[in-house]
Amino acid sequence: MGDSYVAAIDIGGTKILAGLISYDGRLLCSRRVPSNARRGADAVVASIASTLHALLEAEGMQSTQIAAIGCSVPGPLDRRRGVVVFSPNLDWHDYPLRDALAGYFPRPILIDDDANCAALGEGWRGAAADSANFLYVTISTGVGAGVVIDNRVYHGAHDVAGEAGHMVIEPNGPTCSCGNIGCLEALCSGTSIAARARDALRHGEETQLRAMVGSRPKSLSSEMVFAAAAQGDDVAREILATAGMYLGIGLANLATVFDPEMIVLGGGVLDGGEAMLGSVRTSFMRRALPSVRATPLRLALLGSHSALVGAGRLVMIGHGAS
Amino acid sequence: MGDSYVAAIDIGGTKILAGLISYDGRLLCSRRVPSNARRGADAVVASIASTLHALLEAEGMQSTQIAAIGCSVPGPLDRRRGVVVFSPNLDWHDYPLRDALAGYFPRPILIDDDANCAALGEGWRGAAADSANFLYVTISTGVGAGVVIDNRVYHGAHDVAGEAGHMVIEPNGPTCSCGNIGCLEALCSGTSIAARARDALRHGEETQLRAMVGSRPKSLSSEMVFAAAAQGDDVAREILATAGMYLGIGLANLATVFDPEMIVLGGGVLDGGEAMLGSVRTSFMRRALPSVRATPLRLALLGSHSALVGAGRLVMIGHGAS
Repeated sequence: MGDSYVAAIDIGGTKILAGLISYDGRLLCSRRVPSNARRGADAVVASIASTLHALLEAEGMQSTQIAAIGCSVPGPLDRRRGVVVFSPNLDWHDYPLRDALAGYFPRPILIDDDANCAALGEGWRGAAADSANFLYVTISTGVGAGVVIDNRVYHGAHDVAGEAGHMVIEPNGPTCSCGNIGCLEALCSGTSIAARARDALRHGEETQLRAMVGSRPKSLSSEMVFAAAAQGDDVAREILATAGMYLGIGLANLATVFDPEMIVLGGGVLDGGEAMLGSVRTSFMRRALPSVRATPLRLALLGSHSALVGAGRLVMIGHGAS
Repeated sequence: MGDSYVAAIDIGGTKILAGLISYDGRLLCSRRVPSNARRGADAVVASIASTLHALLEAEGMQSTQIAAIGCSVPGPLDRRRGVVVFSPNLDWHDYPLRDALAGYFPRPILIDDDANCAALGEGWRGAAADSANFLYVTISTGVGAGVVIDNRVYHGAHDVAGEAGHMVIEPNGPTCSCGNIGCLEALCSGTSIAARARDALRHGEETQLRAMVGSRPKSLSSEMVFAAAAQGDDVAREILATAGMYLGIGLANLATVFDPEMIVLGGGVLDGGEAMLGSVRTSFMRRALPSVRATPLRLALLGSHSALVGAGRLVMIGHGAS
């Protein structure tokens, strides 16, 4: 492939990452800029284009040295047409992302959703680099998964496969953002951890979270819950133990139906420490079928770059048949 | 393929089915004999061999006209070695089924588990004949699934994929035969329906099931519950509505993570009529993600022959890579 690189883009609700990646998986350079999604989709794409041009200039490269562009974006998507069907965080509806980018860079462009790209990244240069069949599960604001079978992302019949956050595992549990009741996401996401903590304050429970938020209970975040738990706060520890118990059940269910070689965990919430991860592992061991109980649960290795690296990988292997 | 056929065998806990199948999917003939599993595995295989010989003789055929033998058997299995690792209903442990059969018929022999074979059968000549990507879910004594991706059974890393009966969907629910709590199988299998009905009798509930079992409450079966429901018995209807609600959640979870083109339902319990199926459909519509809510739920078409026909298909397409 000589001096040729691919460009990779990871579009999130608050930030955009852009990078240049070699065919052997080296991230030559990357840059992070705010999404400023309020300005509208076309402005976001213009900002992506200028960021990419700046990266090329800094490396003394021509845009013709970019073989293709891979783009990670929150879904649901129509991958074949390169359209973002709906992205709540960006407030995009039926936006023709591929064609808009091609206006700046007339190169082959592929898009896929963030969990799928992160799965490809971890499978290429991260925690699952030794595995052709694995699940990547992201636990952050929401919960999602990428399913990799034979080194390719499995997309299902309507590009929806892997929506693990919306498995129902507590039929009479809390309401989920999707409107359903008792989804995994409503039981263990960062958002749900913060919601349980606000419930605890409202019910007058004795916890240092009260002092942490002061007069602004809405500022309560999952990070604060992890911080309080690390300092031994019982209420915070209980909230994380419960969230971890449910996540362990969710992962056990996924292992039981997919029987993957491993499950890679990313997305930031589990970076908060052992208060939750220990409970995840205990629950997984208790709830998974004996035949899949030895499935390794590994933490993602590429941190905030999983999806960026995976977007680069995407254009090297193509969408493929599934 | 001229005059050549494959032989198909479906080994169950109580009966064995054997048949001859043409390459275009015609079941030339079949025969059903009791398993008599108590006699031991070698006697079961001898009985399979004599049943196949009888079929060949009745058709005026030589055993050389059989190109290969496909065999459906309850798992878990080691497919590559042709070994039944453990089959509770047959009480087989590490039994070398393939080699035992090859002693009678020196032909290529492949084995796979009953849910996977039934999936192949329904995908070839049954309810999913127009689909390359679907799930087959069987609801009988237990609950299991076969996952078909690109016309092949997806087996996972340890041949366990599709163990849908052991997804936990009611973390504080009833104990499952696997030892776990709140598995789908413990909430909607024929066995669990009969168990709920026995609970109702024990709690003194007013139901015609009491008269149906007389002095033998252990004789209470899921068939009796369906019969009572068909006659308007409120307790029986409630039991089936609840089982159907849980099955709907289980199918919604499977649709949400696999995003199949359709889900085919087999195994006999749903043959009991609308009392349960209506509740399954309502629950599925309520619990599935909007993007997969239109996934068709179809009843299997091959009845008790799904796995037999699929065992024949198995040797035509081979085990494949996954």
